[in-house]
Amino acid sequence: MKREDQKRIFKLTTCEKALKQFLDATSITPLGHEEVALEEAVGRVLAVDFVSEVNIPEENRTVFDGYAVMSADTKEASLKKTVVLRVVSKLFPGDVPQEILSGQAVFTATGASIPRGADAVVKVENTRLLREEIEILSPIQTNENIAQAGEDVKKGGLIFKSGHFLRPQDVGLLAGMGRRSVTVFKKPKVGIISVGDELVSLSKKNPLKIVNNYALIISCLVTEYGGTPQLIGIVPDDLDKIKETISMALKKTDVVATIAGCSIGPKDLVPDAIKALGKPGLIFHGLKLSPGKVVGAGVVEGKPIVMLPGHIVSTYAGFYLFIIPLIAQYSGLNTENLITVVKARMEKNVKAKPTANFLRVRLINVNGEYVAKPVSGGSSRLTTLMNSNGYTITPRGKGIKKGSVVDVVLYNSYELTHLTS
Amino acid sequence: MKREDQKRIFKLTTCEKALKQFLDATSITPLGHEEVALEEAVGRVLAVDFVSEVNIPEENRTVFDGYAVMSADTKEASLKKTVVLRVVSKLFPGDVPQEILSGQAVFTATGASIPRGADAVVKVENTRLLREEIEILSPIQTNENIAQAGEDVKKGGLIFKSGHFLRPQDVGLLAGMGRRSVTVFKKPKVGIISVGDELVSLSKKNPLKIVNNYALIISCLVTEYGGTPQLIGIVPDDLDKIKETISMALKKTDVVATIAGCSIGPKDLVPDAIKALGKPGLIFHGLKLSPGKVVGAGVVEGKPIVMLPGHIVSTYAGFYLFIIPLIAQYSGLNTENLITVVKARMEKNVKAKPTANFLRVRLINVNGEYVAKPVSGGSSRLTTLMNSNGYTITPRGKGIKKGSVVDVVLYNSYELTHLTS
Repeated sequence: MKREDQKRIFKLTTCEKALKQFLDATSITPLGHEEVALEEAVGRVLAVDFVSEVNIPEENRTVFDGYAVMSADTKEASLKKTVVLRVVSKLFPGDVPQEILSGQAVFTATGASIPRGADAVVKVENTRLLREEIEILSPIQTNENIAQAGEDVKKGGLIFKSGHFLRPQDVGLLAGMGRRSVTVFKKPKVGIISVGDELVSLSKKNPLKIVNNYALIISCLVTEYGGTPQLIGIVPDDLDKIKETISMALKKTDVVATIAGCSIGPKDLVPDAIKALGKPGLIFHGLKLSPGKVVGAGVVEGKPIVMLPGHIVSTYAGFYLFIIPLIAQYSGLNTENLITVVKARMEKNVKAKPTANFLRVRLINVNGEYVAKPVSGGSSRLTTLMNSNGYTITPRGKGIKKGSVVDVVLYNSYELTHLTS
Repeated sequence: MKREDQKRIFKLTTCEKALKQFLDATSITPLGHEEVALEEAVGRVLAVDFVSEVNIPEENRTVFDGYAVMSADTKEASLKKTVVLRVVSKLFPGDVPQEILSGQAVFTATGASIPRGADAVVKVENTRLLREEIEILSPIQTNENIAQAGEDVKKGGLIFKSGHFLRPQDVGLLAGMGRRSVTVFKKPKVGIISVGDELVSLSKKNPLKIVNNYALIISCLVTEYGGTPQLIGIVPDDLDKIKETISMALKKTDVVATIAGCSIGPKDLVPDAIKALGKPGLIFHGLKLSPGKVVGAGVVEGKPIVMLPGHIVSTYAGFYLFIIPLIAQYSGLNTENLITVVKARMEKNVKAKPTANFLRVRLINVNGEYVAKPVSGGSSRLTTLMNSNGYTITPRGKGIKKGSVVDVVLYNSYELTHLTS
C-alpha cells in the first residue's frame, strides 16, 4: 500500500552487508598515477615499489669529529704507553680524501669521507693533541665510528612498497636518494550535491531558507581524508534536475555524494533518480543503524553514488561508513589506514536498541586511559558533533555495560590531540 | 684548555630545564589575528571567543515527516477510538507556515516550520491516512518531534572559546550561524637555514656533496604542525655568512631553525654566530639527551633561534622538544594540543644510559594494545625514522623494563593509522 505522504517502506540492511554489496557492485581499483614534487608529497600514497639507485651514505664517512687512522697502528696503545700519530691533513664533508700511511692520522669532521688506508676513526675526546701529532690512549676496532657506504640505504634495496603513505621522514629519504618527485596515486574526486528546495548557498541570507553548510562539512572531510572535493551545488526537489545533476557529476568525479532527499517523504527523490539513471542503480537503501537509517548507495556507469541523509549525524554516519572506504580503495589504501581507532572504556551503561547505534562519544583522557562519554541529542543537532570527537557502533539489540572497552573511531586523527582531561 | 680540533666543552642541561630557560627568555605570545574563509579554516586556531548571533534552528521545526497538530486534540486518541483530523495543507522546509485550528492537521516534511497553533508532530507511521484526513491512534505530548528554536545553538550563547582548534564540524557550525569567515591566529613563520660547506640543494648532483634533504624534512614537519616554513637555503661554514643569514632570517620570520654547525668541531660556528648577534644570545647549548646532545637555542632581538644538530635523529629531537613548543605558543595552543601521545607497553628491556635517551620506537597494535619496539641505529640514519613512528624519552640513569608502560610521542597523529599489527 502506497501513501502519498510516504513513498516507500524500504528494506533495512546491516552496515556490513550494505558495504559489501556496495563495494562488490563497484569493483573500484586505485586511480591512475601522477608525479608530484617532494614538497607536495606528504600525505600521498606511493603508487610504485621504490628501489634505491644509490647507497646512503654514498661512501664510508666518519660519524664523529675525530682522527681517521689505521686501526692496526693503535693495537698497542694504552694510557701508559700511548701511540703517537702524525696529523697530515684535515678533512671536512665534501672534501676529496687522500690516502694515509701507517703512522699517520687525518682529522675528519663529522660526515667527512674516510681516507683510503684508514679503517677507523678515534673520537677527538679520546685523543691528546700535541702540536702536529695526536696521542692515542687505547686501541680502536676496525670500522669504529665509521658509517659504512650503504649502511642506511643499500643500492638496489626495496625501500618502500607501493601503497606506502608518505610522511616527512619518507619524503626526506627520497630526496636523499636523489629524487625530486615521486609517483603517487591520484586523489579521488568526490562530487557533493546538496538536495532540497529549502537550501541556499552560504553567501545568501534568507530567514526562510537553510544555509547549505553540510556540503561544506563534507567537503572539508573529503579533503582531510585525502580526496578532492568538488562542490556541485544545490539542486531542488525535482526528479529531472536531480537526475541531470547526478549524471553531470558522475562524468567529472569518481564518487558522487548526495546530501538529503533520501528519506521516505514525498520529496525524497534521490533514490528514484539513481534508479532511473541506469544499471545496476540503487544497491541498498536503508540501514539497520540509527542515526543513519536512510543512508543508501547506488552504482551508475560503474561509479559509486552515496546517498547521505539530511540530518547531520546521519550524514556523518554515511560519510564514515561508505565514503571513506571508497576514498581508501581509490587511493590504494585500506580503510584501516584512513580511520583512527582507539580503545576506550565506556563511561556509563548504554541501553540496547533494536538497531545498531551510531553513538557519538566524547573521548577524555583519564590518567592516560581513554574514557568514552556518550553524547546524546537529536540527529539534526550539529553541536553534538562539535561536542564529540568520535563514534562507536553499538551492536543491535545489545547495550554496552559501563566500564567495558569499545572501539572508538575518531572523526579525525588530530581529535586525539584536542581531548580534555 | 682549548684545542684547535675541539672548540668548546659545553655544559649539558636537562631537556626540561633547557626548555624552561629558553621559553622564559623569549616570552612568546600568540601572533596577531587574521580572517580566513571557512573553506580554509580547518586546522586553524580561533583567536576570539565566538558568541552566536542566531538561534539554530531559527524557529521551531519538525524533526520527522509527519503531521503538525494541536496535542490537546489527541488527548483521547486510542486504537479503539481514533481521533480524526482534517489535513488542510502541506509544509516543506522553507515554506511559510499558516495557522491551524483545532481539528486540523498540516503535513510537515522533515525540517519544515511548525504552523502557529500546532505544538506537536505525529510521525507519518503513527497515523492512518484517509482521503483528506488522518487518523491518530494515540495521544501525543506537547513539543513531541519538534526541534525548538535555539535548541542546537542559542542566540547569545558562547559557542567556542579563543584557542579552539577548528575541525570540519566546527567550521560547518560557523557556516550555519551565518559566518563566511573566521578570525584565527596567524601561523608562525619558521625560517630554516642549513649550515655546511658540504651541502648542495636538492636539484644539484655532486657525488662529493650531500643533498640538503633535512631542510625539506623540517619544512614538511613545520607545515604538519601548523607553521609556515620558509626555506632560507644553505650557508657555508663561515662565521660572517652565518651571522648575516640568521640576522636576515630573524627579520622575516618568527622562529629561526638552523640545521647542523652546532657541534664541537672547528667548523661548528652557529653558536658563535648567535652569541655575536646580540643579547641575550645563546640560552643553552648541550642537552643531557642522546641523540640530541648538541641541540641548543638562543634569543636575539626577542626572537627564538633553535640550533638543530646535523644528525637527523638529533635534528628530530631538537624539532620535537623545542620547535613544536614555540609553534604552539605562537599559535595560541598548548604543546599538548599539537603532539599526539599514546601509552604503549615496552617490548623489551631498554638499558640505562648516563643521559636521557631519545628512543625511537615502532609502535605496533597487538590485539588493540600498543606495543613499543625500540628501533636502534646510529643517529645519522634516516631509515631509523622511516622504520619508527614515534619516540619516548627514557629517564637518565634508568632503563625501561620489558612490559612497562611508557608515553610515546607519535611523529604525527596520522602515524596511528599506519601501524602494522
